Amino acid sequence: MKRVLSGLQPSGQLHLGNYAGAIKQFVDLQHDHEMFVFVASYHALTTIKDPAELRANIRQVVIDYLAFGLDADLPHVNIYLQQDVPAVTELTWLLSCVCPKSQMDKATTYKDKVAKGISASVGLFTYPILQAADILGVAPDIVPVGEDQRQHVEITRDLAQRFNHAYASEDDPVFKVPDVMVRADAGVLPGLDGEKMSKSYGNIIDPFLPEKKLRKTIMKIVSDSTPMEEPKDPEADTTFKIFRAIAGAEDQRTTDLAAQYRAGNFGYGHAKQALFELLLDHFGDARERREKLMQDPGYVEQVLRSGAEQANEVLSKVLEKARTAVGL
Amino acid sequence: MKRVLSGLQPSGQLHLGNYAGAIKQFVDLQHDHEMFVFVASYHALTTIKDPAELRANIRQVVIDYLAFGLDADLPHVNIYLQQDVPAVTELTWLLSCVCPKSQMDKATTYKDKVAKGISASVGLFTYPILQAADILGVAPDIVPVGEDQRQHVEITRDLAQRFNHAYASEDDPVFKVPDVMVRADAGVLPGLDGEKMSKSYGNIIDPFLPEKKLRKTIMKIVSDSTPMEEPKDPEADTTFKIFRAIAGAEDQRTTDLAAQYRAGNFGYGHAKQALFELLLDHFGDARERREKLMQDPGYVEQVLRSGAEQANEVLSKVLEKARTAVGL
Repeated sequence: MKRVLSGLQPSGQLHLGNYAGAIKQFVDLQHDHEMFVFVASYHALTTIKDPAELRANIRQVVIDYLAFGLDADLPHVNIYLQQDVPAVTELTWLLSCVCPKSQMDKATTYKDKVAKGISASVGLFTYPILQAADILGVAPDIVPVGEDQRQHVEITRDLAQRFNHAYASEDDPVFKVPDVMVRADAGVLPGLDGEKMSKSYGNIIDPFLPEKKLRKTIMKIVSDSTPMEEPKDPEADTTFKIFRAIAGAEDQRTTDLAAQYRAGNFGYGHAKQALFELLLDHFGDARERREKLMQDPGYVEQVLRSGAEQANEVLSKVLEKARTAVGL
Repeated sequence: MKRVLSGLQPSGQLHLGNYAGAIKQFVDLQHDHEMFVFVASYHALTTIKDPAELRANIRQVVIDYLAFGLDADLPHVNIYLQQDVPAVTELTWLLSCVCPKSQMDKATTYKDKVAKGISASVGLFTYPILQAADILGVAPDIVPVGEDQRQHVEITRDLAQRFNHAYASEDDPVFKVPDVMVRADAGVLPGLDGEKMSKSYGNIIDPFLPEKKLRKTIMKIVSDSTPMEEPKDPEADTTFKIFRAIAGAEDQRTTDLAAQYRAGNFGYGHAKQALFELLLDHFGDARERREKLMQDPGYVEQVLRSGAEQANEVLSKVLEKARTAVGL
């Protein structure tokens, strides 16, 4: 089984965009891959300055992932908090010493984040090195990321190669250079206003909302003013795009819905009702699981403890090898 | 008892300049201060790229400090390796997230080191934050440093204040803001050529040399061409300055030597012989201890183990408080 690593930002409420962009993929991958999925709580310190908010977000993101179907009862699925594997910070230091400062100066996400008003801390600046340590410490085969993270994984690959070159022989490298798997569809799910769905744009759909609120939210999706009777182009409509992303492009329900758009005598209200029903159906189990998980903090703690144990075991071996290589 | 923290660079062979500049002070302080003295092995990774050299240097610097008279058998004297207290790297991350990048951009030692040809790594750039973690994790009252390190300790004080301000109440701060104790005499010991004694200038005196070699080295100290018979100014002579630094300015032997310089009929060769005898006398015990320590790696290991235990105990408490404060 190939090993997959992925980190999650504890940025609070998850939404349909996160699901379509990443979570769905993890849930699919877990059947035939060894999964290491962690909550990037150290990274979050660069943006979340309120301790209570951070604490709550960390717990919530774990619950939501489990609800969405990440199955921690599978022996090869490990979910953990970054802060429970603190040795990644030691690995970060070792990598810092082979990382040219010019490489960080060139990283674009730092500049983008500072431009958006995030405080220009050293943590934000060196973030890609911590991310490299997260990845290299677990020695995954594959790191699935969105397009926006491609540069960071390239930095990881580069640091691994630099370190191996400086301190190891070719037949016995310290770090495995992981493959990047860029999600083709990452980030394309539109939000209520037709723009990319994102918490910061305030245009998200939360599939865990109570039914009434969920329906009300869906009814807010933008649509054009084509009269009910006239045929419509599904490809141009936000509701259809969201429907297709969740049901799947090849699904009969998607094909049927497209036909109804094109036939006319089918209004956007009907389409939104169809999406509402799809979400209730698609996330029915997830909504139930979430209810139960919210009542069972003991289970969540146990999942995290066991995940951290596995991660620490893998990481301590890699770290020991790296320490010996540099002379510690 | 006030707590003192100091870090040592494992830069290989120690010399008379290190002794006069720092070690002598530690040996004096240990009688009425709780001492935490560590070998900065993580820091060394920014400059030493040869693992075997680093490993050897780390052991040697511990042996040399013990030989010079740091007494690890005193229950309040703790000597440890930075790498045996890896939680400092976690603390480094927490501090990185409150450290403005502009503060590191302004640090002068980074620029100085890069100008000297040291590779411009992120480790070298963020070095002062690791140093702050070394210090704040142990919560010392006093940090004795040379003038060249004053800026770094100022950064430490600043980061402690920033963190406390962001995450703690005034009556219950997370970090103790330590006092800086700048050594007045740090770095003034001249080397063989009259310039500041420094390994990189190749002008050092190693007081652990075999007698014959030590004498030969001392005879190389520069002197002017004043004839033997004529009176000489001790203040202008390198041999005298070294003698005074070791024996002490108020010492009878120093006063006597100065008088001989001024009386004439006393050549530089005589002065050098006096310095040679002083060193054999002053470092007699140290030289013997060093011989024994070189034969007893088990004792050194035990000193380091017990030092690391103490340091980890102190640091884990500070770290736990910091983690809770930020929301981890």
